[in-house]
Amino acid sequence: MHSTETNLDFALYATEVAMAAQVASRVLATAGGEIKNRWLCRTAELIRERAPEILAANQVDLEAAPGFGLKAAAIDRLKLDDKRLNSAAEALERIALMTDPVGEILDGSVRPNGLEVSRVRVPLGVVFFIYESRPNVTVDAAGVCIKSGNAVILRGGKEAFQSNQALHKVLHDALEEVGLPTACVQLVATTDRVAVGHFLQMSDQINVTIPRGGKSLIERVMADAKMPVIKHYDGICHVYVDRGADFAMAREIVVNAKCQRPGVCNAAECLLVHAEIADQFLPQVARDLSSRGVELRCCERSRRFVSGCRPATPRDFETEFLDLIMAIRIVDDLEQAIEHIETHSSHHTDAIVTNDLAAASRFTAAVDSSAVMVNASTRFNDGGEFGLGAEIGISTDKFHARGPCGLRELTSYKYVVRGAGHVRT
Amino acid sequence: MHSTETNLDFALYATEVAMAAQVASRVLATAGGEIKNRWLCRTAELIRERAPEILAANQVDLEAAPGFGLKAAAIDRLKLDDKRLNSAAEALERIALMTDPVGEILDGSVRPNGLEVSRVRVPLGVVFFIYESRPNVTVDAAGVCIKSGNAVILRGGKEAFQSNQALHKVLHDALEEVGLPTACVQLVATTDRVAVGHFLQMSDQINVTIPRGGKSLIERVMADAKMPVIKHYDGICHVYVDRGADFAMAREIVVNAKCQRPGVCNAAECLLVHAEIADQFLPQVARDLSSRGVELRCCERSRRFVSGCRPATPRDFETEFLDLIMAIRIVDDLEQAIEHIETHSSHHTDAIVTNDLAAASRFTAAVDSSAVMVNASTRFNDGGEFGLGAEIGISTDKFHARGPCGLRELTSYKYVVRGAGHVRT
Repeated sequence: MHSTETNLDFALYATEVAMAAQVASRVLATAGGEIKNRWLCRTAELIRERAPEILAANQVDLEAAPGFGLKAAAIDRLKLDDKRLNSAAEALERIALMTDPVGEILDGSVRPNGLEVSRVRVPLGVVFFIYESRPNVTVDAAGVCIKSGNAVILRGGKEAFQSNQALHKVLHDALEEVGLPTACVQLVATTDRVAVGHFLQMSDQINVTIPRGGKSLIERVMADAKMPVIKHYDGICHVYVDRGADFAMAREIVVNAKCQRPGVCNAAECLLVHAEIADQFLPQVARDLSSRGVELRCCERSRRFVSGCRPATPRDFETEFLDLIMAIRIVDDLEQAIEHIETHSSHHTDAIVTNDLAAASRFTAAVDSSAVMVNASTRFNDGGEFGLGAEIGISTDKFHARGPCGLRELTSYKYVVRGAGHVRT
Repeated sequence: MHSTETNLDFALYATEVAMAAQVASRVLATAGGEIKNRWLCRTAELIRERAPEILAANQVDLEAAPGFGLKAAAIDRLKLDDKRLNSAAEALERIALMTDPVGEILDGSVRPNGLEVSRVRVPLGVVFFIYESRPNVTVDAAGVCIKSGNAVILRGGKEAFQSNQALHKVLHDALEEVGLPTACVQLVATTDRVAVGHFLQMSDQINVTIPRGGKSLIERVMADAKMPVIKHYDGICHVYVDRGADFAMAREIVVNAKCQRPGVCNAAECLLVHAEIADQFLPQVARDLSSRGVELRCCERSRRFVSGCRPATPRDFETEFLDLIMAIRIVDDLEQAIEHIETHSSHHTDAIVTNDLAAASRFTAAVDSSAVMVNASTRFNDGGEFGLGAEIGISTDKFHARGPCGLRELTSYKYVVRGAGHVRT
């Protein structure tokens, strides 16, 4: 079923897929770790074995890519080869080695009346995952969802449609082989956007929607979804260089946070510098950044320390540039830095560079972002760097899951209560 | 500002209240346990000291109550007296004794590169709490929110408007005395429903809305709220009596679950009985229930074992009676009981009565409800009974918080990361 087939009843299709996922999720919730790990390992094997058919499908996508207007960088992300397939397979094998989150006893107690109360981790149920371009994400997401006991409905981008179908066939065949319901992993068989709208209505069947992609995708999902959404929204990240900072360390961190991969969410967009060190520090860091091609947009006070900068507009302090551009502001002190961050940050990742313990403590307590860094680059806010093992996204929400989302973040819990004929009086 | 004042610009008012709450919440988030506990204890003192003014305000509400169409039971819930005020004060003192959830380190590790990663509990921010009738809830909710570091906007019912204002004055004065921003606890100064709609739009300022009341209130909030909602929806709770049950125990549990307080959410609405024991067990339990005035609505197979019952309609198995009515069905076995519950339960609380360990294990694994009980009454799904110490509601969602919501459920977390100049390569 491709989007070019016209007579598809999307509402009916979405209902069928979501209901099948829900039925499968109930089997998966109690399936046990062994069969899930067998699926992960068998899928890894099949990805390697069936590389030729996957790469052939990928080739079709690559040939169509310029027609979708994809630029070189996007085409590179779309491209699969043996190495990338092997790394997708290895990711599954790593997930297989992780502890099963389902059934973990979070806490518990025996109540004074003898009632045994425990809180047990359970899967959320059904995950609707909407993503763009990179076909490896199809494999990663399915691995994270199955390991955490969730059925998943995958909705990839149109650019990767053939690649995703080939990969899904492998995921599907491995489910069949190990004896799990094949509806544990479904790929939406159309890239028509209207179909997504129908899925977003199915709050009785789908427990959470995770959109991963551009802002317009996320805003559309936020507006339309009737179920909870784990969203990876924008990353307006700050580095604050305190008066107590080691200049060499601060320069390395600022350059790394801005330049190492400017197009990603945990790259820094704004540099805040304590007024007392601005005259010395700013010219140094400005040279570092300029020499790496970073365009600097400076507040009025900072302009005289930064040669060749542009004046910053208020909008520059609210913008996720995702590019080699950095806004710079001088602040009077730590408190003004915190105030700036609490006002302008997207609460994704914010860092302080300082050797002053009190300043570090105050900063980590007062800055309310998914990750608050002391003397480390903002670029470290990442599931792999935090040791989550696998991630399906980074949440910019505070509700349910915050920061990198791995297995644990795709679970809920239930109370299991054991009595001996207990009744309430 | 009362709802009878006509020129109120509700949108502006909601914005002002929500923004003040947000500013206050930032102060409260880092205020520390000591000052929060001082507020709790001082409020408890003031409630006792100023009982006369609170009771006078309550008297005004009580006199107006029949005009709002309140029946005797509702008027009793609305009524305050010295004993009830003292129990509200004691509740605050108990909350003061509880461990501060804010700042708790949930987990953490040193990464191979030396980066120190910890996950720290933080408040959600601003809670919008909508509730009905009982004025003690005003005090309880404020206590739970402040202790968990959240500013709260209270929106009580019109029946308790004067009582809530008098109580809020005490909460407010205690905030002022201990030096916390008074906007930490605000009471919406109108009971006009239009105002609620404006608050529900303020997703940038309000982090979570908690509606506690009837189904129509909750449905309205679900439809309109732009922020996450912790909802306490319906409780269609089941007791399944397995063939391995002790009959005497099963009879006590069924009677307790149905009759001890039939109007609450964790009361049982449906009894499922294993076919092998139906001929012996059903007549016994039916007598117990009938003698307590319970109307029994039986499936076709169970009808011949229950004298004087009504035939159950399919709707009876989907209904939260909140009354002395119980639906009864015979199931072939444990799996059919699970299937029935997974299809018809509202996933609030479901119980099995059995001495068969395998059946108990299968039931607790397969039934996906906020609390799954073995040999205990459904009535135990309650924050107090589970040892949470204080609760603001029971969540029937799986996302973020499930089951009784106490201090912990009003929190999020953030990653605090400490490096020594770490940059990503």
